[in-house]
Parts: sequence; structure tokens; C-alpha cells
Amino acid sequence: MAPDRQVTLSARIPVAVLGATGSVGQRFVALLHGHPWFELTAVAASERSAGKRYRDAVRWMQSSPLPRAIADLEVVNAGTPSGVALVFSALDADVAGPIEETWARAGALVVSNAKSHRYDADVPLVVPEVNGDHLALVREQRYGRGAIITNPNCSTIGLTLALKPLADAFGLSRIHVVTLQAISGAGLPGVPSYEILDNVVPFISGEEEKIQRETRKILGRLDGNRVQDAEIVVSAQCNRVPVVDGHTECVSIELGRRASLEEVRDVLADFTAEPQALGLPSAPERPVHLHAAEAHPQPRLHRDLDRGMATSVGRLRPCEILDYKFVLLSHNTIRGAAGGALLAAELAIARGLLAEHPASSVVAAR
Amino acid sequence: MAPDRQVTLSARIPVAVLGATGSVGQRFVALLHGHPWFELTAVAASERSAGKRYRDAVRWMQSSPLPRAIADLEVVNAGTPSGVALVFSALDADVAGPIEETWARAGALVVSNAKSHRYDADVPLVVPEVNGDHLALVREQRYGRGAIITNPNCSTIGLTLALKPLADAFGLSRIHVVTLQAISGAGLPGVPSYEILDNVVPFISGEEEKIQRETRKILGRLDGNRVQDAEIVVSAQCNRVPVVDGHTECVSIELGRRASLEEVRDVLADFTAEPQALGLPSAPERPVHLHAAEAHPQPRLHRDLDRGMATSVGRLRPCEILDYKFVLLSHNTIRGAAGGALLAAELAIARGLLAEHPASSVVAAR
Amino acid sequence: MAPDRQVTLSARIPVAVLGATGSVGQRFVALLHGHPWFELTAVAASERSAGKRYRDAVRWMQSSPLPRAIADLEVVNAGTPSGVALVFSALDADVAGPIEETWARAGALVVSNAKSHRYDADVPLVVPEVNGDHLALVREQRYGRGAIITNPNCSTIGLTLALKPLADAFGLSRIHVVTLQAISGAGLPGVPSYEILDNVVPFISGEEEKIQRETRKILGRLDGNRVQDAEIVVSAQCNRVPVVDGHTECVSIELGRRASLEEVRDVLADFTAEPQALGLPSAPERPVHLHAAEAHPQPRLHRDLDRGMATSVGRLRPCEILDYKFVLLSHNTIRGAAGGALLAAELAIARGLLAEHPASSVVAAR
Amino acid sequence: MAPDRQVTLSARIPVAVLGATGSVGQRFVALLHGHPWFELTAVAASERSAGKRYRDAVRWMQSSPLPRAIADLEVVNAGTPSGVALVFSALDADVAGPIEETWARAGALVVSNAKSHRYDADVPLVVPEVNGDHLALVREQRYGRGAIITNPNCSTIGLTLALKPLADAFGLSRIHVVTLQAISGAGLPGVPSYEILDNVVPFISGEEEKIQRETRKILGRLDGNRVQDAEIVVSAQCNRVPVVDGHTECVSIELGRRASLEEVRDVLADFTAEPQALGLPSAPERPVHLHAAEAHPQPRLHRDLDRGMATSVGRLRPCEILDYKFVLLSHNTIRGAAGGALLAAELAIARGLLAEHPASSVVAAR
Repeated sequence: MAPDRQVTLSARIPVAVLGATGSVGQRFVALLHGHPWFELTAVAASERSAGKRYRDAVRWMQSSPLPRAIADLEVVNAGTPSGVALVFSALDADVAGPIEETWARAGALVVSNAKSHRYDADVPLVVPEVNGDHLALVREQRYGRGAIITNPNCSTIGLTLALKPLADAFGLSRIHVVTLQAISGAGLPGVPSYEILDNVVPFISGEEEKIQRETRKILGRLDGNRVQDAEIVVSAQCNRVPVVDGHTECVSIELGRRASLEEVRDVLADFTAEPQALGLPSAPERPVHLHAAEAHPQPRLHRDLDRGMATSVGRLRPCEILDYKFVLLSHNTIRGAAGGALLAAELAIARGLLAEHPASSVVAAR
Repeated sequence: MAPDRQVTLSARIPVAVLGATGSVGQRFVALLHGHPWFELTAVAASERSAGKRYRDAVRWMQSSPLPRAIADLEVVNAGTPSGVALVFSALDADVAGPIEETWARAGALVVSNAKSHRYDADVPLVVPEVNGDHLALVREQRYGRGAIITNPNCSTIGLTLALKPLADAFGLSRIHVVTLQAISGAGLPGVPSYEILDNVVPFISGEEEKIQRETRKILGRLDGNRVQDAEIVVSAQCNRVPVVDGHTECVSIELGRRASLEEVRDVLADFTAEPQALGLPSAPERPVHLHAAEAHPQPRLHRDLDRGMATSVGRLRPCEILDYKFVLLSHNTIRGAAGGALLAAELAIARGLLAEHPASSVVAAR
Repeated sequence: MAPDRQVTLSARIPVAVLGATGSVGQRFVALLHGHPWFELTAVAASERSAGKRYRDAVRWMQSSPLPRAIADLEVVNAGTPSGVALVFSALDADVAGPIEETWARAGALVVSNAKSHRYDADVPLVVPEVNGDHLALVREQRYGRGAIITNPNCSTIGLTLALKPLADAFGLSRIHVVTLQAISGAGLPGVPSYEILDNVVPFISGEEEKIQRETRKILGRLDGNRVQDAEIVVSAQCNRVPVVDGHTECVSIELGRRASLEEVRDVLADFTAEPQALGLPSAPERPVHLHAAEAHPQPRLHRDLDRGMATSVGRLRPCEILDYKFVLLSHNTIRGAAGGALLAAELAIARGLLAEHPASSVVAAR
Repeated sequence: MAPDRQVTLSARIPVAVLGATGSVGQRFVALLHGHPWFELTAVAASERSAGKRYRDAVRWMQSSPLPRAIADLEVVNAGTPSGVALVFSALDADVAGPIEETWARAGALVVSNAKSHRYDADVPLVVPEVNGDHLALVREQRYGRGAIITNPNCSTIGLTLALKPLADAFGLSRIHVVTLQAISGAGLPGVPSYEILDNVVPFISGEEEKIQRETRKILGRLDGNRVQDAEIVVSAQCNRVPVVDGHTECVSIELGRRASLEEVRDVLADFTAEPQALGLPSAPERPVHLHAAEAHPQPRLHRDLDRGMATSVGRLRPCEILDYKFVLLSHNTIRGAAGGALLAAELAIARGLLAEHPASSVVAAR
């Protein structure tokens, strides 16, 4: 489906990546290579890496080669904002909070993958196909010309993408989710191999609370200048499994009203949203791919669908306890982290939130 | 805890293993090595293997060496019963049914790991700590002096062991279970490595139906000469994960009456049953090990507890939707297959079901 | 580096894939999607699959979606040649031989990945950058207008690509190679997961002999209408490791004459050959990528370099016993199978071996 | 084979483990549980852990439960020697050197798994079946009543066990070895899972040098009060593979004199040494198990042979370049670390090196 409107920029926007040497930081660097709107001009990391060339500071673990132009960039100290208007933060949560604020106060639009500001009342926690309207919160923020936008936890993104069309069509009252999460979600060095080879670890610190809390905020309703959390009961059990990329989630749902299996299926299959309508560069063709094969989706086969930006749903069927159950799969470091943040930035720009950047106003009806 | 009664046999009972070359068959052979009650005297397999020495017919995949005395046994045709009084069947389900009947009609007590007879009204489906009393069904069977006893599906065994004390203490109305199952559960050749390395397969053919159906039969009540299925609603989602041995299950339960977390914990921790009281050779010291560490149980660390016969339970906590949730772990080819069948045979003998074998009557109060 | 000549075709050549449902067959289908020279018009498989639509006959295991146009093709019986001029064979070795002959006799150029005809004196065993001149052998073949070309074993392809420039520059007398091979090399169902998870299997049937024999033929010299095997002693030890794609090989070499480390490095780094000069569609930019990082190459990081068509070489250093040692990595189902065969076909066409196809004559100097 | 002499102790010797919370330290704790000669009375670690109970300081990763008596021990500071006569060191190499010296000066016999003192001229580097006579070096040491004995690198132990009988029978001139090493060899946290899942890392820092150097020292000849390194050329290439435990090594050897395959096989199969003759508690029944099956040995099947203390050798056959080649397998954290050190201590005691301990003199001819 071709987009019905089109956003064009007069020039590429210079961007910085904070925490550029880590696992998610590297994904940002890889995804920004060749991006039609953004040009990576600064890589920032901790003081320890500052002053080195990026190629020497990073232990590059992506399967695409490190772009040469980026390899030679000098790493700057993430603690010292430069004048870049758009910043992607892949900082660790234990340092992200104040550093992101500093960049915002210096005038940057900060799109963060860290949890530090996710639950702030004036900070949007955004999945572009789900709650792009929450971006309006930034107008109330305390950071002057700058602002902070946050990207949810990797497990929550795929989950809310599948839930959104159901919530809109039928309402949602209860969600039971058991995750089987990939090891790349834990960053670098992350999960020791001795803990996870031939093993399952049935606990991920803080993850269940994040899923339960973030799902309610994301599916919540913007009410003036705040978000009313959705009144959904969420029960999560999170497991780490020996898979490189791609979180699998086993979901049982209770709807707000009765719906047939066909209705549920159609609503999922037909789901499309603003990023698709605008043809944003990182938007998947469809946010949800519905699979009919009995053993799909699977991480290795489907995590890269739509360049890792789509959520796959399969095994949709009635649940003996709640109403329906299904299995979903989402790429945790693309859609669930760097790719999701890029898409959020694209939507923010399309909605005119990068004020000083003249190109951002060009949203044309077709 | 020392057993309060003691079963002793005057001599070891000769036994045969049907399907001895497969994955579960090999486990039977390994576990029977050095068994105090049983002596493996016959290995039976398909016509293709019959006549070969066992060492040549089997592709031995156990980490303990193939016992020398067994290595030299000539494989016999499983289709032709010999006079052995006790028979363990590890046959594939597509051939097990009629072959097991033939052995039973020839007078043997057949303890089967196949699903073929699990749902027959006159065949007990037994987890010794859970429903040993169901063994009484064999007195009604149609096989003359012989009989058939069945062992449940590997996922169901661990599940019912954890549920039994809860069902007795509080009642159980609804069970939501998501499994993360090891590849050894699929036998040999089983799951192709190309399907499961760096992957999850969210479907195991027939498995969800087995868990849902068998749990109700096992937790059911013996009523005269039949079993009344328990009135429990079970919802299962089964996944295959790249783990060698040990099924992990994420369980949410709704109790029949209100109970505090402490009550639930105590009931699980204190669980003990007839196999422990009798000190049966294959009985674990405790059927359920309750773990307090936040990331336990894990397959690689805990599958071998109590020689692979114990079920581990951890992460016990309230469920936001049902009453409580927890994670359980059970060794799928020991407790969940060969070891479970051995224990069932031991209990049957202790209860005097191997009529012709004089030793079986010696159940002494201490 | 831009190619110095350019091959262009007036129209895409219709091609068939034999054994299209297997692991390598699927790779052919995936790689042919969007190929500038070839159009997949027929998928052939065993009688069992014939008559079904391809989507129903195949258990698609590629990470790219099954192309829709192909999904609807009706599978034809591989035993019955159609009039297609170019055929890729991914048939199992136990049936490939006579079927491929039938297609050749029917006039097709058969490019085979099976071993059946690799050692025939009149059949070229081709790695396009190494011994494209051996293609001349087909003019002597007994198949009328048709011909058979073969692609080597997956381990041999990467090995000979790294050895070729060294053999040309310095001569080669002895090669010691230990492989760590991915599981996809074994096809489907291939290696059971129970054999390879948390394990190494230090034996692959027939593999060591293939490497030893094929290396000598490929590096041999075309002498009139036959190939003189290279006089190189090869010692191989083959291991299967739990890696999805990408064969790693630890190679020690003895050169024909003394050479410094710098000379060896330069020769590898500068290697380029006819497929690069012609800019063939499947040719990698460089056949060998030389890595300087101390722990490179690695399967997950480097198997997809140059779309899986490049061989990576790293850890080049003196060997305490022979002259030099290094580690190489090659994608076993792309370069080592389907992609290698495509490139061989492209070179054959550029050299005018697809006689009836007029487009094949267009090899223009730039 | 029953031992021909017997060592008995009048009482168990109290021992301490330094670095008790790490991966190898945990193995020491597990193996010392129930040891007939030794009683673990002190667990020592870094200052950070000192003062905590062991159960709280350790992240227990063994598949056997943490022994209760040990769980309650208070961790002491490894930097402060106590009066324990026998000490096992599992300290990291960056701190081990001076701490081990302190304990030796305080009078302890220190058996170390660290590399710090391995190459000291007066420190024996011991594999008990290979060079037990090197223990005599400790009489020349500078540590007063105490002494330091070292255990080699995990890869070297298995290798020298297989080489020893060949060196004695035929001489050895050149060794080419390629290792496929398990992840447990890297300790905790060790190899990040993101680096090794679906991957091979063809480099282990310092490992090749250790194998090359230690093999020459261990196979060297004690000449008065120093060791003459063996004049063997060793070429090593070390790889990390996704295997939990068990190092696989592909070995090619050149003998000092011509020998038939049968002679080589017999010499390996018949190998036995002093630890077997003395029936030391940790000695394997046979140091080398020779396998005939074409695909053996394999880590998962054979690492636990003889309680993890045996080395497996298989695929013995002529090498096209050197004389013979074979595959060996050895458990890297049992035989290759903690178990090897225990056996070295047992041999030292049997040879009377624990002077003050009266029990050490009891070596009786049977």
C-alpha cells in the first residue's frame, strides 16, 4: 500500500547517538547508515571512550560492516551536549537520566531508548503506530526548546503493536503474557554464555514490571496535557532463552466485548496507522504480519520481516481461560530499540516537533 | 526423610524394554543399569533391528557408557512377546497400541510411555505421587493376567506433581500454562537442528491437547472402576526451545478457595506421597523442590536434582489475573518418561499388581 | 572496483531448479528472486511433491519470504526434463546422477551442486574465480547440446578461493585444514538437534575425502581436454559445530617457495579474477576479504559479507610447522552451494557456453 | 584394574580454596564435597566477598546443589593466609601470583590453577600421569616449609595426557593442534552469549602460547633441580565454540620414529601411570579412553567419563602430512582445572610432600 501523504525534507538532519559503543548504540549507527532523513555526525560515549576514533572505541558486533565514514569519527563525551538538533540515546539507564536532560536543555530533541524518563508525566512513551498522539506531551515539557521522547521496553513494543487494533475495536481488559526473550536484549557484555547455553533463565530483572506499567501508559488516553493509563490488568512472566535476536511472546487476552475469531483476525490483518499513511522511512509496510502456518512465527525466520520493523502474530485461536491467545514475535534491537526510536523521531518530525528544522513542516496531502 | 515402610524383593525381576533403540528406550536401558529390583534381560525393537546385537542396533546417545552386558544382548522383535513378566514400552505411538496389547495378553504387566492407551477408560494414567490409587483400574482390564499402565506426556508429569498438593489443599479451577520444552522430548532424530538453533518453535503437534486432557484425568477421582475427570479448565501454549533436557513451564493457577502465599508455599514444600513413604528405588526424596532464588529453577542447574526425578518450582508469587503464578522445571526424559515409568512400575509392584511375582507381596511396616 | 568489461543479456533466461524443496533448493529459489539474468520458471522435485503447488510442497526455512510468484508454481517431476535451457540441481547425491544426465541429454546446461559428476573426467568442477578455464571441458562432453557443470563441496569452495592466489604466486605443496562446519550444510532434516546442541561432532561422512580430492582437481591445470590434478598434499579433519550458517576453517599451508608475511598478505588482499572483471551479477566485489582484527573472521559477523559470496580470511601468521596459518570463513549455503552455482552459470554464459541463447554472446570490452 | 599399592590417611586434611566464588573455585567446592582425603574448612575470596556467608557471596552455577555445610562458611580474605596446610588456588591470574606466595611462605602447600607461577624454574607444572616426577622441584623452592605446585592450562592437560605414552614409546617431534574450546573455560562472567551463540570465535587470548610453552615443559625431562623442555615443535590454533563443557582438540603428530597404526593404538589404549597404580581418589580408571566409533569422542557424550577425569581419544588414523592424527576430548573444568589440581595434590601427598602431615607417609605396597 502506497502512503497517502508524503513527508519530504529539504536536507538531511544532522544527528548524534549517545552511548554509541554499546549494543543498541551500534544498531543506531547501522540503521542510520543510508537513512534518507538523518545524517550521523556525532557519536558520543562515556569519558573513557571520548577522544578515540569510533573504530577503536567500539567492539563492532553487527553483521553489516562498520560504515567507513563513521569509523573515523572521534567519539565525544556524552556528558557535554553539542549543537545537534536531534539526538538518539542508547545510554545505560544508570546514567541516561541527567545526561539526556542536559542535551534537551541545550535544545535537542532527545529520543531515548533508556527507561529513565519513561514514566515522567510530561514525557511521551511512544510506539508510533499506537500512540503517536502522545507526542503532544512534549509541548508541556520543562526543557526549553529541547524535549525528551522515550521508546518503550523491547518486549512492550511488539506487544502493544498487536494489542492496539484489538483495543480500538473491542476493548481490552486483561492480558497474560509469557515472554521468551533473546539475549541481545541484555546489551553488552549482557548475559554470560555460561548462564544461557542449553538453558532458560526464567527471570529478567525489572522486565515484568516494565511490561505491566508501560503497556498501560502506551494504550492510555491523552487527556489534555496528561495520559490516563489504560485500565488493563497485565500479568507478565519473562524468560531469557538462547536466541540471538527476536522476542517471542505467548499472549492470552480478554476483550472488552465479545468478538468472533474472524473479527479478531481481520482487525489484526487490516491494522495500519499514521507511520504507514505518511510513508515514514522506517515504517514497516504493515505493523502486524498475521501468520497462518501452524508453527509460525519463529525468531530466526521472521524477525527480519519488513527490515525488522514488523511484529509477527501467529497461532491465533481461542483461549480456554481468557478469550483468545496468540504468539507474537518482534525484533528486539530493531523494532524494539533503535529502529523503534528512529520511527518515533520520524513521526515527531512529521508532526512538526523539530521546530527549528524548516524541513519538518513539509507534510503534504497527496 | 527415611521411608516409613520398606518394600523388599526376594530376587530381581527380569524385564524387557520395547523400542529399546530410541531416545526414551535408551534412557530405560541406562536407568535399569544397577536397578535394585529389575534386571534387563531383553531389548526389543522393530523387525529391522531384530537379530542384531544391541550395540550395533543402537546409536547410543546417553552420557553414561552403554553397559557391557546389555551391549551384547540380541535385539528381539517387539512384535513377538516373550515370557517376561514386566515390560517397559518406549515404542512410537504409531505402532505401540497393538504391540502393547499383545504383550499384555501374553501375561505381562506393560508400563508404557506411549500415548496409545492413555485415554482408555480401563487404563490408569499414573503419576505415582499424584494418583497411585488409579492403578486399581487394571483389575478391570481385558488382558487376562497381563495389564497396561501408562505414563503421561512429559510436560504433564511435572505439572501434575506441582498441582497435586494444591488441588488437595485448596482445590483448583483454572490452569494457564506456557511450556518451554527441551529438544530431547522429540525423540530421535527428532527436531532438526536447522529448525531450533537460534530459534523458538511455538508449536508442538498434539502437545497442548495432551496437557489439557491428561491433567484432568490424572487429577481426577477414582470412582468405582472408572475415573471422573477433574473439573479444571486448562489452557496450554507449547514451545520448543534450544535446550537439551528439561522442560520449563510458566504456570498461573486459580485455586478453589482463597489461600495466602504462605499457605501455598508450605503446601508445596511439604508435599510427600506414597512413593516417598515406601522408599521406592526411583522415588525422589521430595517430589517438589521449592526454590527461593529469584532466577531459579533453570534447566541446566536443576534438571538433575534427585537424579532427575524431582520437579523444581520457583518464582512463586501472586498472579495479576489468576491467583498465583510460578515456574516449574522437570527432567523430560527421566521423570517425564523412563524414570517416571520405572517409578510407576515400582508402585504397581508394591501394591501387589505383579501377581505371579511372589516378591511383590512383601510390603512391610517398619 | 568497477568491472572492466560488461556482460548484458537481451532478455532474462528461463531456468529450472531441481530438488527445489530441500535446503539448497530453497536457497536457489531465494537467490533467483530478482536475479537480473535468470527467471525461475520451473521448480522440480521428487514424484511425491510433483503436482502440488510449491508453497504446499516446501517447508520454507529461509529468512526472506517465499516470493509469491514462485509460491504458486506447480512442482514438476524432476525425472522428466522440460525444455528449459538452464537448470540448477540441488538434488540429493543418491538420485542426482542419472536425473542430471537426462536433463543434459535433453539439451540443458545443468549446473549441479551434487557430488555425482564432480569427478568425471569431462565434467568441470568449477569455482569461478579459481578455475573458470576448466569450463572448456564441457565441449568434450557426451551429452549432445546439453552439458553438466558441477559446484564443489561447500568446504572446498572457500578453501580454494583463499588458496588460489597463493598457488599462483608462490606455489603450494601441503595444506592442513580443520573445519568447523555449520549445520545448514547437512540439508534438511539434516543434523538432529539432539546430536549437536552443546556439542561438537568430529566427523562428517565423506567430507574429508571430498576436500582432499576436490582441492587437487580445482587447483589442477587444464591440459588439452583433461585436468591434471595439482600435486598438493591435503590433510583434512572435519567437525560439525552448533552454528547455523558459515563454515570456519583453520588452515596451515606450505608454499612452493619462500615468501614473506607481507607478500602473502598482499597477494590475498589483491586477489581478483574474471567474475570481478566481468561484473557478473553474483560476483562478490572481492573474492577474499582479509581481516586484521585479532578475533575475526566469525560466522555470525562475516558470513553475509558481499551478500554471502565473499570468503573471509583472518589471523594470518606464521605456522610453527608449515609456513603460514590462517582462519577462513565462507557462507556454506550461499557461496558454498546455491550462490556458487549461480556464479558458475553466469560465467559459463559469459563464456558463451549456453549456445542457443543469443544473449550469451554479448561480452563487450568496455 | 585395581591399584597395586594403596595410600591411606589417618585423618582428613583440612583444605582451603582461594577464589572460591569463581567458576573454577565452585568446581573445587563441588569436587571436595565427600572427598575421602580432604575436608574443605575455609573458602577465601576477594575483600569484597570477605565476611559474607559463602551462600551469599557465590552465584552457584554447578548442577549439584551447594553443600549445606559449605554454604554457611564465612568467606575469608584470600590475601590473609590462615594455618591451613593445603590450599587450592582458583584465583584470577592478575592477582594470584603474590597471594599464592604469601600462603606458601606461611607454610601451605599451594596447588594452583593460575598461570602466574607455571613457568617459574622451581615450580612444577604437573599432570600427574605425565610428569609426577617434576614434583621433586618443590624441594628447591624458596618458600620455607610451604611450596607452590601448578596445574597447566585446560587445553594442555588433555593434550599432554594423550601425548605422554606416545612420547615415551616413539618420541615426538611435531604437534599440530586445533582446539574447539568450551565456554566454561573462560570463567565467569566469561564469554558474552552475544559473542558465541550461533558463532565461533577463532581466537583466545594467550591460549596458543600457553599450549605451545606448557606442552614442552610438561613433556620435558627433570634434570637435577631443573626441567629441560622437550624439543617438540607445537603449532596451535584455538577456537571458542558454543559448548558448555569439554574441550575438543584436533591433533596431528609426527613421531620420533616410525610406528604402525596398531602400535600407536596399543600404546594409547594401554596407558596407565602412577595415579592409577596408587589408586588415588581422583584418578580415572584409565587416563586415556580410546574410542572406535567413527564420530566419537563428543563433548556431551564423553566429557563425564571416569567422573570427568579421563581424556577421550578417537578417530586415530594416518595424517597425510604428519604421521598420525586424532581427536581428543577432555573436561576443561574437571580434569582441566579443579579435578586436575586435586589429583596433583593427592600425588604430592602420596609422595610425601606435605611434610608435617603424618598421614602423608602411608604409602604401602600391597
